[in-house]
Amino acid sequence: MARSSAPSRERIVAGAADMISRRGLNATSIRELAKHAKAPLGSTYHYFPEGKGQLATEAVQYAGAAVSRILRDSLDAGPAAGLRAFLDVWRGIVVESDFRAGCPVLAVSVEEPLDGIPPALTAAAEAFEDWERLLTQSLRAHGADTEQAPGLAALVVAAVEGAIAMCRAQRSTRALDQVAQQLEAVINGAVGRSA
Amino acid sequence: MARSSAPSRERIVAGAADMISRRGLNATSIRELAKHAKAPLGSTYHYFPEGKGQLATEAVQYAGAAVSRILRDSLDAGPAAGLRAFLDVWRGIVVESDFRAGCPVLAVSVEEPLDGIPPALTAAAEAFEDWERLLTQSLRAHGADTEQAPGLAALVVAAVEGAIAMCRAQRSTRALDQVAQQLEAVINGAVGRSA
Repeated sequence: MARSSAPSRERIVAGAADMISRRGLNATSIRELAKHAKAPLGSTYHYFPEGKGQLATEAVQYAGAAVSRILRDSLDAGPAAGLRAFLDVWRGIVVESDFRAGCPVLAVSVEEPLDGIPPALTAAAEAFEDWERLLTQSLRAHGADTEQAPGLAALVVAAVEGAIAMCRAQRSTRALDQVAQQLEAVINGAVGRSA
Repeated sequence: MARSSAPSRERIVAGAADMISRRGLNATSIRELAKHAKAPLGSTYHYFPEGKGQLATEAVQYAGAAVSRILRDSLDAGPAAGLRAFLDVWRGIVVESDFRAGCPVLAVSVEEPLDGIPPALTAAAEAFEDWERLLTQSLRAHGADTEQAPGLAALVVAAVEGAIAMCRAQRSTRALDQVAQQLEAVINGAVGRSA
């Protein structure tokens, strides 16, 4: 039985994901990740004996899986519903953080690995691929051209991720709102529904 | 007369832009920016007496203006030609750096400002807006709906920026290639040309 005062493994991972989405990985120490999750450094090393790389990898996997779950739940109602849920996650994070937080998968992706291919970067690639695969499946299931579906799924993920960055720089949700409207029209066209 | 061995102001700015696109801003010191540009720290402080923030701001402005110039030159031939030139810049940087470098404007945008709104973040917002404005003008000039053009321009910038991040994580140009094809079809549809 865990004591209720002890930080859970998941709380540390979730805190690290938030911190990485704000500050990036290279600029953040494991001490700062632990502090941001309100976890003692000892507990953090207890759960993540390999240190920052291990925690960062799990944080990216955690964020990737959380978004995949939201996509899976919403895509049953069609790719446009999945798109809206995907956008709502990020709009919520960006707005609630006053444009200071964003996507930890994106944050890790735009940092040069210092040596080799770190597991956190591999986890980021896998998160993008998972989101693309879920969108592709839903597009195909709802009537989109089989060949065209993967490209459209990549467009959705890329445009939403890029818009997160634009919103943070511009301190406005305009880019996410515009991208939402454009992507919904493209998806409706691809599944044969008029906008 | 500058001695030919002295690093030019522009070379330091260009080197800083490259370094920021690789490592981000928070994780990079002015010493590292100078070293990456093969400039003595003294010359760097001579040109940028306010330090890292000043150099970073000029680096983001430099990258933004360089891309704006490429867009302006290519968009005369139409928005699809502009899109191709925009994509070619980033594909070249991503591939030539073996997926280690990307877009300095994007890198600055996904980092939480440590206090206030730093000028480098404002410069990033302005770079995105400038690219969007150039694309909007070209879309309108080539027959796109006046109301729809700004949204489509935002989609282009967001999707290309997001695809840069996906390519770096996935160590593949697939996302940029897919986004290129999708965006060209959307643009051709908007300006009334069949793909």
